[in-house]
Amino acid sequence: MVLFRRLLGEVLRARRVEQGRTLRQLCADARVSLGYMSEIERGRKEASSELLAAMCSALDVPLSEILSEVSDAVALEEAAMAVRLTPVELGSERLAAQAPGNGDVVASAA
Amino acid sequence: MVLFRRLLGEVLRARRVEQGRTLRQLCADARVSLGYMSEIERGRKEASSELLAAMCSALDVPLSEILSEVSDAVALEEAAMAVRLTPVELGSERLAAQAPGNGDVVASAA
Repeated sequence: MVLFRRLLGEVLRARRVEQGRTLRQLCADARVSLGYMSEIERGRKEASSELLAAMCSALDVPLSEILSEVSDAVALEEAAMAVRLTPVELGSERLAAQAPGNGDVVASAA
Repeated sequence: MVLFRRLLGEVLRARRVEQGRTLRQLCADARVSLGYMSEIERGRKEASSELLAAMCSALDVPLSEILSEVSDAVALEEAAMAVRLTPVELGSERLAAQAPGNGDVVASAA
């Protein structure tokens, strides 16, 4: 299952790091709790819509841009999952090498 | 402030209605509470990542597609807000007609 909060956390963290800012600095600017935001970046807590807006404002990035990036990251994982579910049909050598058994085993483990 | 949960609710609702399904049917398929989902469609509650995944699965729509639609809807609202904040510079007749005073009044009210 692709979880929104995990990829949202990754996108938010990447943007912050790109700007060379620490979590502490960003949280002070956005007026959000450091502990809460740390959990969000690691995909462990859901971000409220208000927090998301505050973070986008502090990062000076439109919310639509963050969501578009998350959508792209989700699409990549969905595609990777689709491949894992049909390794036999796609004849992927890499996946066959990773799988201890046959395609059915991989599909049921996914 | 553009709130993610409001536009997410609108997108999810539009998809359900497009498919001619009632909230009750969809919630039964997704195994989520009718009351909770009703609040989400109206943008009153945040959807957990697990619920979002369950709804996408029940709607048979990839999460990436839902997020992309929400991103587009958010972008439209961001653009509309940007216009409201600078009605004088953009010379929007429609906005000028709506505003009782000048541009500064509109900006401070937004």
